[in-house]
Amino acid sequence: MIGIDWGTSSLRAYRLAPDGTVRGRHEAAARGIMAIGLGGFAPALREAVGDWIADGEGCVLLCGMVGSRQGWVEAPYLPCPAGLADLAAATVRVPFDDPVRVRLIPGLLARDAGGVPEVMRGEETQVVGLLDAIDGGAEATLCLPGTHCKWVRVAGGRIAGFATHMTGEVFAALSAHTILARTMDAMAPPYPGAFDRGVARAKQRGGLLHHLFGVRALGLTGELADSEAASYFSGLLIGHEIAAALEAGVAPPIHLAGAEALVARYARALAAFGIPHRVHDPDAAARGLALIGGALHDRDW
Amino acid sequence: MIGIDWGTSSLRAYRLAPDGTVRGRHEAAARGIMAIGLGGFAPALREAVGDWIADGEGCVLLCGMVGSRQGWVEAPYLPCPAGLADLAAATVRVPFDDPVRVRLIPGLLARDAGGVPEVMRGEETQVVGLLDAIDGGAEATLCLPGTHCKWVRVAGGRIAGFATHMTGEVFAALSAHTILARTMDAMAPPYPGAFDRGVARAKQRGGLLHHLFGVRALGLTGELADSEAASYFSGLLIGHEIAAALEAGVAPPIHLAGAEALVARYARALAAFGIPHRVHDPDAAARGLALIGGALHDRDW
Repeated sequence: MIGIDWGTSSLRAYRLAPDGTVRGRHEAAARGIMAIGLGGFAPALREAVGDWIADGEGCVLLCGMVGSRQGWVEAPYLPCPAGLADLAAATVRVPFDDPVRVRLIPGLLARDAGGVPEVMRGEETQVVGLLDAIDGGAEATLCLPGTHCKWVRVAGGRIAGFATHMTGEVFAALSAHTILARTMDAMAPPYPGAFDRGVARAKQRGGLLHHLFGVRALGLTGELADSEAASYFSGLLIGHEIAAALEAGVAPPIHLAGAEALVARYARALAAFGIPHRVHDPDAAARGLALIGGALHDRDW
Repeated sequence: MIGIDWGTSSLRAYRLAPDGTVRGRHEAAARGIMAIGLGGFAPALREAVGDWIADGEGCVLLCGMVGSRQGWVEAPYLPCPAGLADLAAATVRVPFDDPVRVRLIPGLLARDAGGVPEVMRGEETQVVGLLDAIDGGAEATLCLPGTHCKWVRVAGGRIAGFATHMTGEVFAALSAHTILARTMDAMAPPYPGAFDRGVARAKQRGGLLHHLFGVRALGLTGELADSEAASYFSGLLIGHEIAAALEAGVAPPIHLAGAEALVARYARALAAFGIPHRVHDPDAAARGLALIGGALHDRDW
């Protein structure tokens, strides 16, 4: 079968063996759903994996923002708790060229302790792909860094709940569109020492809105070089995120998965908090697509 | 004398009687220092208050970002604690047309409990203008809302220290440059009920980076109208700021001064936290300029 992780800004397609082995991959960084116009999803799918379909693949399983209101077909959010079988049973049929079958995995909806809703699209499939590796039968916490970082609580092999932190998007917006931009060289290479200073600052009192101004003030007084400011700022935000997640009661070890460089930053920050963590396969989405696809019978397609 | 609060984005000029009474005022919203090119400060000053100078005023006192590196003449930051006499003694001469004398009040530098620097330019003059009203001989906490909100600790009639929160600028950057913009009508009128919901949310655990995503998720699930999102978001940020300030140990009552609509929001949020507060004269800068100018002898000019 073919599995596709189709998000806001990119499309990642996998040709999958029945045992989940990735036999081929196509990545189209510019074919995220925001780049696809009305009526453009079927052509984009043909363009991305037409060669594999011509070679005999007849089933395509999608996950990610492609199932949102801005996507191809809207798949209603499935409420938590939800696991592999629940997700497979809730997949949605997408009209496409006969005899090829296309289905879509829904996103998940949860509520945090304050009753405020939480949504994800795509990460549920990554989590399914990681369940074996994390011994998901027991309670476990996963952290999936990204533009919107997800902290996911797994219990009994199902996703029990999750919390989203807008850390990546806040970093991008504030480093480009506030006074911080004046004393921050966004193109500078990472400085681990400055990152660690930012993490340490996040442990102090005063709050994030106050600590942000410190990035500017340290630059003004010459105590933080422009070239180190982006690393310090990254450590400050990730440190605040981790401090808040710990306060909300996540249970270590933290299972990390995602883009390598970003996961390395979270691992470094967790270590600074003294929190044990494990880094997992960045291809979790491919494995989750294979597992959910494997749980569908022929008649379900 | 003439007093001018000359900030990043606007210029506010006051013609002051010896007792501090405001006899005239000019406001040039478009003549902040960011709008003034090299060599443009003296002409801008003549344009703003040339009529009062022609009418016999010979002394001009400036405060605000006009004393920064991007301003007219850079006045080094004065370290805290500092009061009226310290500020008057540290004013800096600015070259201008004889026989008119122009001087500039320096900004202040402090360090927070974590050793990180804090800077202000202009607010020190507002605080001096409020000292009588707040009984500044005792310990007191002032909160001056704005793009960069200042929480100022006064003791023994001097500014002992302060903390800056980037709340206003964070609101502007995140509401325009993140996914929050999609479900937020920034032009909608204020909704006090939505503001209160945001303040209440800030008291819950989870952290600001997590609560930000809730603004988006509440919109997606139809639990927060687009027209109410900006008010909710404002309450969320101001609530986080107040919670952090309280945790850092500010002592009530909180003395508020600044733009009326914004001060009203802070007053409402403080009330939701059960913190007593008092609202003061928004013309505090004019009074501070008069007091500091009055402390200068003729030979000092």
